Amino acid sequence: MNKLIERVKVTERKEKPDPSSLGFGQYFTDYMFVMDYEEGKGWHRPRIAPYEPVTLAPSASVFHYGQAVFEGLKAYRAADDRILLFRPDQNIKRLNRSCRRMSMPSLDEDVVLEALTQLIDLEKEWVPRERGTSLYIRPFVIATEPCLGVRPSKSYTFMIVLSPVGSYYSSQLEPAKIYVEDEYVRAVNGGVGNAKTSGNYAASLQAQQKANELGYDQVLWLDAIEKKYVEEVGSMNIFFVINGEVVTPALSGSILSGITRASVIDLLRSWNIHVREERISIEEIYDASVRGDITEIFGTGTAAVITPVDELNWHGKKLSINDGQIGRIAEKLHQTLTDIQLGKEQDAFHWVVEV
Amino acid sequence: MNKLIERVKVTERKEKPDPSSLGFGQYFTDYMFVMDYEEGKGWHRPRIAPYEPVTLAPSASVFHYGQAVFEGLKAYRAADDRILLFRPDQNIKRLNRSCRRMSMPSLDEDVVLEALTQLIDLEKEWVPRERGTSLYIRPFVIATEPCLGVRPSKSYTFMIVLSPVGSYYSSQLEPAKIYVEDEYVRAVNGGVGNAKTSGNYAASLQAQQKANELGYDQVLWLDAIEKKYVEEVGSMNIFFVINGEVVTPALSGSILSGITRASVIDLLRSWNIHVREERISIEEIYDASVRGDITEIFGTGTAAVITPVDELNWHGKKLSINDGQIGRIAEKLHQTLTDIQLGKEQDAFHWVVEV
Ligand SMILES: Cc1ncc(COP(=O)(O)O)c(C=O)c1O
Ligand SMILES: Cc1ncc(COP(=O)(O)O)c(C=O)c1O
Repeated sequence: MNKLIERVKVTERKEKPDPSSLGFGQYFTDYMFVMDYEEGKGWHRPRIAPYEPVTLAPSASVFHYGQAVFEGLKAYRAADDRILLFRPDQNIKRLNRSCRRMSMPSLDEDVVLEALTQLIDLEKEWVPRERGTSLYIRPFVIATEPCLGVRPSKSYTFMIVLSPVGSYYSSQLEPAKIYVEDEYVRAVNGGVGNAKTSGNYAASLQAQQKANELGYDQVLWLDAIEKKYVEEVGSMNIFFVINGEVVTPALSGSILSGITRASVIDLLRSWNIHVREERISIEEIYDASVRGDITEIFGTGTAAVITPVDELNWHGKKLSINDGQIGRIAEKLHQTLTDIQLGKEQDAFHWVVEV
Repeated sequence: MNKLIERVKVTERKEKPDPSSLGFGQYFTDYMFVMDYEEGKGWHRPRIAPYEPVTLAPSASVFHYGQAVFEGLKAYRAADDRILLFRPDQNIKRLNRSCRRMSMPSLDEDVVLEALTQLIDLEKEWVPRERGTSLYIRPFVIATEPCLGVRPSKSYTFMIVLSPVGSYYSSQLEPAKIYVEDEYVRAVNGGVGNAKTSGNYAASLQAQQKANELGYDQVLWLDAIEKKYVEEVGSMNIFFVINGEVVTPALSGSILSGITRASVIDLLRSWNIHVREERISIEEIYDASVRGDITEIFGTGTAAVITPVDELNWHGKKLSINDGQIGRIAEKLHQTLTDIQLGKEQDAFHWVVEV
């Protein structure tokens, strides 16, 4: 495979940004990975090329009919300078599930992993060293056929771009205030809510803006049908600690199957903490919180790993969670997961892959 | 305004395609209209430029978070060679409604109409003369900010491209076979189903493919909540003629507010035919059809104007409509609308705008 990936060299390397002001997804490295698809020919011409603009016909189908899927994962720098990836196989599998749902051709998982590894190896100087920083990896596929017929595109481009990032939110374990949205909805069963496709994010912006205007950081979505059951947060899955047990919405078909979510469930169970994946109504949550039975709420996602929730607003009713303090379980999960990701902790689950 | 639109000349004009094999959305004219938006600066630099590729950063937000809206309308050539547009103001208003729903900046409606008019005037030789052909007009807006944060983009590009087209389907009033989809859904109330945004089309492809494999032309969507009420067809609204009355799904929030739909309702009412816009269950349709009360079903949309439906498949139950014959009302609507569009019929509603 190594030899199959063509390489075009950059003439000049960019200057690296100041690691203290990276933000999220603003800076990109010198190289990217690109591969093309054409009907009849399949995926071809895998190459590592200079990071440069994409040129597409104005009629390219991604602009009109939205076939676009993506993934997000991170490369971390260990204390001994090794570069570590967290469960990249899971992101690649999910990318393929998204492709299939969106009528897009799937990719050879080994080729994607090899591409990812070669690209990061070439760009390893871009993996920042500061606490909380990492190299964000964005694989994505877009439909490129220059034709306005509403049907699956006959050509696609797969790309991987790399961006050195600070933590997604301003600091690491900063609690978030969540607004329970009951007017707008994100996805519904039978739709594309469990695919990581661009339209889901565009569809979420209006509610996100409304929550921000009301002073909240993120939206907690309810199910589209009864507007009763908890789904997920902007780009995180959600967990509740109720009477010492952990509860999270089941993968019903309308939420994303988070890789952090799956890892958190495995960790909790390995600690003998009972985890239930089930349908949970926002009313149950409200009542349990009023009774004082909810000790923690937290979100899980690649961007911030664990985000404790310190306030929930449902219909104007404000719930303060754990007196605004970060909970014990969220804290321990965050510590353990980041330690595994940074190679500090024994990796009992074999989640970490060295580049 | 005329002087405000900058023009860059092409060096060479393309050869026009054979009008008998235009297909849909495959050929594009020599020029396009482009205008940019930046936060703080607003929409600026309206220009008519050579039709050429778009260059975007790999991190441009349209590729990742799907902020993209579009419109579709047609320019027709009248027998006396005038170029006519059908209700362009309605498309421009809908474009702005789509923009607002997708957290995108809206456009000055007069500027868009002026841009459209100037561009078509410049390209009038591209409006084909053959029966059933027209110049398809595709205005669209895409998010261009090179940043991976999930939030509304701070920059956008608005473009208008033109494509000479045959009729969307192989012939003009060709009946379609429709598959009633009850597994996949297109949109739900509180979502973005009433916006003409790219993600809605990507979300529909899987069901469309399934219908095609089963030998059907298009999908009839049911509501996402009860999977019981009729919504719309792929890119058409749907009408039923039941006991001499015409019934069409009300604009519930999850379907597109079609301009052909609105025009059909106005025409029918002007003919003293009773039209009801309401919630209609597929079961009612089935029962009415079995009783012999349904004399016609037809779709309405810019692409084919009126498409009679000659077969409906619901749960494997096949309904043959009007013995597979094109209905009287569909026929008359098609004739009247195309005559108005081509300037042959008196335009009582003032729908037609000359370029
Ligand atoms: C909608 C949505 N839900 C949940 C998640 C969390 O998934 P993961 O843990 O794989 O990052 C993400 C982000 O990736 C997301 O975009
Ligand atoms: C989803 C959808 N519904 C209905 C229509 C019909 O709308 P109009 O009559 O404005 O073309 C279209 C096509 O434009 C469409 O894309």
